Formats: sequence, C-alpha cells, structure tokens
Amino acid sequence: MANETGYNVAVVGATGAVGEQMLKTLEQKEFPIKNLQLLSSKRSAGKKISFKGNEYTVEEATPEAFEGVQLALFSAGGSVSKALAPEAVKRGAVVVDNTSAYRMDENVPLVVPEVNENALKEHNGIIANPNCSTIQMVVALEPIREKYGLKKVIVSTYQAVSGAGLAAVEEMKEQSRDVLDEKEINPEILPVGGDKKHYQIAFNAIPQIDKFQDNGYTFEEMKMINETKKIMHQNDLEVAATCVRLPVETGHSESVYIEVEKGSPDAEELKQLLSDGKGITLQDNPSEQEYPMAVDSVGLPDVFVGRIRRDLDRENAYHFWVVSDNLLKGAAYNSVQIAESLVKLNLLKG
Amino acid sequence: MANETGYNVAVVGATGAVGEQMLKTLEQKEFPIKNLQLLSSKRSAGKKISFKGNEYTVEEATPEAFEGVQLALFSAGGSVSKALAPEAVKRGAVVVDNTSAYRMDENVPLVVPEVNENALKEHNGIIANPNCSTIQMVVALEPIREKYGLKKVIVSTYQAVSGAGLAAVEEMKEQSRDVLDEKEINPEILPVGGDKKHYQIAFNAIPQIDKFQDNGYTFEEMKMINETKKIMHQNDLEVAATCVRLPVETGHSESVYIEVEKGSPDAEELKQLLSDGKGITLQDNPSEQEYPMAVDSVGLPDVFVGRIRRDLDRENAYHFWVVSDNLLKGAAYNSVQIAESLVKLNLLKG
Repeated sequence: MANETGYNVAVVGATGAVGEQMLKTLEQKEFPIKNLQLLSSKRSAGKKISFKGNEYTVEEATPEAFEGVQLALFSAGGSVSKALAPEAVKRGAVVVDNTSAYRMDENVPLVVPEVNENALKEHNGIIANPNCSTIQMVVALEPIREKYGLKKVIVSTYQAVSGAGLAAVEEMKEQSRDVLDEKEINPEILPVGGDKKHYQIAFNAIPQIDKFQDNGYTFEEMKMINETKKIMHQNDLEVAATCVRLPVETGHSESVYIEVEKGSPDAEELKQLLSDGKGITLQDNPSEQEYPMAVDSVGLPDVFVGRIRRDLDRENAYHFWVVSDNLLKGAAYNSVQIAESLVKLNLLKG
Repeated sequence: MANETGYNVAVVGATGAVGEQMLKTLEQKEFPIKNLQLLSSKRSAGKKISFKGNEYTVEEATPEAFEGVQLALFSAGGSVSKALAPEAVKRGAVVVDNTSAYRMDENVPLVVPEVNENALKEHNGIIANPNCSTIQMVVALEPIREKYGLKKVIVSTYQAVSGAGLAAVEEMKEQSRDVLDEKEINPEILPVGGDKKHYQIAFNAIPQIDKFQDNGYTFEEMKMINETKKIMHQNDLEVAATCVRLPVETGHSESVYIEVEKGSPDAEELKQLLSDGKGITLQDNPSEQEYPMAVDSVGLPDVFVGRIRRDLDRENAYHFWVVSDNLLKGAAYNSVQIAESLVKLNLLKG
C-alpha cells in the first residue's frame, strides 16, 4: 500500500460524510500519497475502508498516530481538532482542518485557493478550511471584488441536510416517508444536534443552523460574516447572513445581494467576468430556464452561479444565485485543493 | 340554502386549492351569505361541494351566472378573470380578484386590509387581491413603515408548492416517494406549468417561480416589487426580490432585509412594534429556538414574524423572517377580509 513517492497522509474523521468525500477526492485528483492512515474516534476504529483498490483499517486517532505524518486532513468535529491538531503539528505534520476550531485564530490562515492561496505561506502548522456556505460564496464574489471592489454582501442561504452529517440525512429521509404516510414523527437531530429543541425538516424550512448567539444571529450566520471578511482580507466589508436549513440532501444554494465599490457593470459584463472566474461554472440563461440547482450540483466540484441581474434601484447593486455541493467544494474538495497548493508552494515538510 | 339577510355571493374557481380555502374561510368567519353560487370551468362543473352542511353543485362560470350576484370572489386564473370579471361588474357585482389580471391596473385598488383598507373606497367594481408572497411581507412591513418609514426592502423567498396548485402538490409528493425509492422521475409541472422545462422539486430548491421577463427577473419577483410599491403607495420604495420554490406543501417563508428612513430602533423595539401589529403574531425568542416555520403556519390566518435583528453594519438596517399560510392570508383569507371590509365600509350594492 506504500508508494515510493508522495506524502504520508492522515485523514481524521475518515468514516464521516466529509471524510468519505475526502478519500474520493484524494483518489480522483491522484494526490501523491506514500502512506495513508485513516483515523477516527474509538467508536469507529476497526472499520474497513477501500481506497484505490486497497483495504484500510480505520485506527483510533491518538497523538502517537501522527508520528511520521506530513499532511493531516481533519474533519471529525471541533473538539477532536482542538485536542489533536497541535499534536499532529508537534510531530511535523501540516494540518488542514475542516472544523470551525481554528478558523478565526489570527495565527491560522483561512484559505480558499481560488481566493487567497498565498495566505498559506504564513501558516504555522494549521490551515483552516472555511465553512461550506462561506466557501462557495467567496469563490463567486472574488472576480467581482478583484475588478470592482465590494462594499456590502447580504446572503440568504438554502442549505442541505448533509451539512449536518449522515445521521441528519437519515432523519430527513425517514421523516419524509413518515410525513407522506401521515405517520407521527419524532425529530431528534435537526436543526442542530445537541440543541434543546428539534423540529420537522421534511417539507419545511428551518431558519436555524447551528446554535444562537446573544446578538440574535446563529453561529452559522456569524461564520459566514466573519470568515468572508477574513478570507477577503477586508475588515470593513459589510456582510450579513440569514441561514436556513431545507429538506435537500446535498447542495447548498444562496441568494446573494451585493453592492460594489466602483463602477456599475451591466449584468452581461458580470456574467462574462464570472464565467472566466476560477472554480466557477456559469449557468445563466433565463430564456432557456438555465440556472443552478442543488440536485444538479451533487458530485461536482464547481461553484455554479446564475440568475445574475442588476438591482432595479441602486446602480452599483446586483443579485445572483450560487449553488455548490456542500460536501465537495464546501468541504472535502477545498481541503484537498489546499493540500495541492501546499505541495505546489513547497510548504509540506520532506 | 338561502338566508334572509346577507349577500348573494359567487365563488369562481371553487374547486381549486384557493377556492377550497375561500369556502372554508367564508364558513369560519360566518360571512353573511344569502345565496351562494359555486362556479368553475366547464370541466369541473357538476362537482358537488359541501358548505355549512349543505351540498352545492358547481356550475359553469358564464356571464349570465352573475345575474343578481353582489360579491364575486375570483380565483380561477387570470384569463377567466379577464373574461368574466367585467361581466360580473356589469351585472352589479363587486369583484374581489385573486389573480394577477388587474393588480397593476391603476383603476383597480390592490388591497391588504391591515395596510390600505381605505383604498377600497376608490374601487370601480374590481378589487385585486395581491400575490401571496407580497401580502405576508407587507403585513410585516406596515408597522415599521408607519413609524420609521421604509427606504429599501430586499427579500429572498422560500415558497411552498401549493402556490402552484393542487396538481403541483401531487407532483411533489409522488416525486418525493420516487426519489426516496430511487425510482426514475418525470417532472411535468414545476417550476411553472406551461413553461418549456420542468425540474425536480423533491429535495431541491428551484430559483424560478412564474416565467422570466426580459430583465432577468421572474414575473413572481416583479409582482413582489411592483405590488409592494402600489400597496404602500410609495413609488420610490426600493424593492428587490429573489423567489425560490421549495419542497414544502404549504407555508411561504421569507428572509427580509430592510433599511428604514428615520431612526434606528433596536431589535427589541421592533419586536414590540410588530407584536402589536395588525394580523401579526410575533414568534421571536432565539434562546428558546422560537421562530416561525412553514409547517407551523398551516391552517392559521396570521402572519408570523421572527428572527428580528439589526444589521451589523448599517444603523438603519434590519433582518427578519416572515411566514404565513400562502393559501390563507396569502390568498383566500385576504380575499374574504376584503369582502368584510367592503361590508363594513358599506361598499357592496344592496
């Protein structure tokens, strides 16, 4: 199972929804791996997972498991990252962390390669992968920011259940059947595992993702607000978010309003600009009913943008619709892209 | 079946999703009816419908059917209203029209009783009932407009399938089962019956309601924009909308951003103001996860408002979440409220 060239890679949280997509992405992108270690909680240790035709046994993530690891991809929850990412770094690994544990740490770069790849050069062992809903939005915003500058962003999200994990997907599916069969339902996970109350997600829209802060915004909304400013290195960028969970399995959608700093391009100019943007696929032809949709995004790494149109009142304002697979570009794919950038920029230790 | 007191009432489109709710609302509100006529297309004529314990036979809507009718509630599509509303008026009826046929006609008042009941006094026989997504929004906006003035409104909608009719609801339900069973699906109605392409609504979000205009906005979006200005009698009000169809049976949700003209009340002041607002029920207690949701709104006439919070960047800006049963306050209930206002203001002919 060992190659001569490549890196010693550990995937932490290998049995989760994102971990599964990480392995698929590493496979598809043919990331150079010398040794692969699949790590998880004690509970999932012992499971078998196949990678490039070989079977791997998942091991418990312990500090010692990171001996010799050069690249560790973490996606096993914030507390695991808090406990083990420093242990991995201590042993020489560079950590790409897909939890919220380090995202706003000023010593940790928060990176979407299409937007701020160079921030990787200042890493101190840990690099944070942004929140799923933030990533797809900043990819869509970046070409506009670069050319016209950004003043204000208001986003309302339409987020898929797989962002809350595999158990949440199962809850949604079973509950959907029960509602269709007019059976009683008993929500136990959504909107937020671990919060006090749980609500029906089937055939509903829940305006809560993650818990509430004292200011009336949810943590998910504050993530979008703070992470966008950090990734774009623009503290005075106005950002507001309303995050809503939908009965969609995979694929986050976003209704985005922006005001630009300078200029007032027409919608066609913005479409051209975005169609040339890194990581973006434009799907914008209203007369043919072409626009991005969650179900069409599943399994694809692109950020899909459409419905681009001018605000009818403000010269410098625009509306558009952004969709992406929340498990791929929103999580696993972006993490592996970061890993590729680390290789390209020669930032992994030999 | 005839009462001594009350009015001769015709319900046009009695067999549709909204018609059904109209009859329920007339019953529940004990609207004074002397004679009731249930009218429909030729196709549905002959069906039996029960009202207040009596069975009625649905008749074909023809010009002559309106002889002697004092109040006609239309909800059978724009072309039926275009053809028959003038015939009803010619015969002495006042028409409350729930289609988009006359909404932007400057001789036709567009009325939400909580907002602009007095506009009824200028009617010329026809009164238009606004679009469902507009009604619930203006009910929530009105107390704020009255006290602080409104400068800008940006709304992203989360709209239920029943707004597209009973057949669309059936399509969503069957399709949901088929997707859960991993069967092939064959969308035929949504997003818009009569448009070129049809897409999966089950476990998806479709950013199209009604057809597209040349400016890149859909007709639904332009309805929200134009109707809001008309109902609020404020042509310079900035309004923008993105309308999205969800796999929800009944209950439209809306993520609303506003900028007020004067003052900068804190969120608690706005909550107090809205909890006192006509037709509004406040559901806003984040620490207890209390906020409005589509499934909780079904069958209730209220407009539910929650998640009220200040924008973090602009002093005069706020965000909130508005939910209402699109078939009730969004359609049937508002039409019957208009009828009640006509009675109260003595505007029905004897």
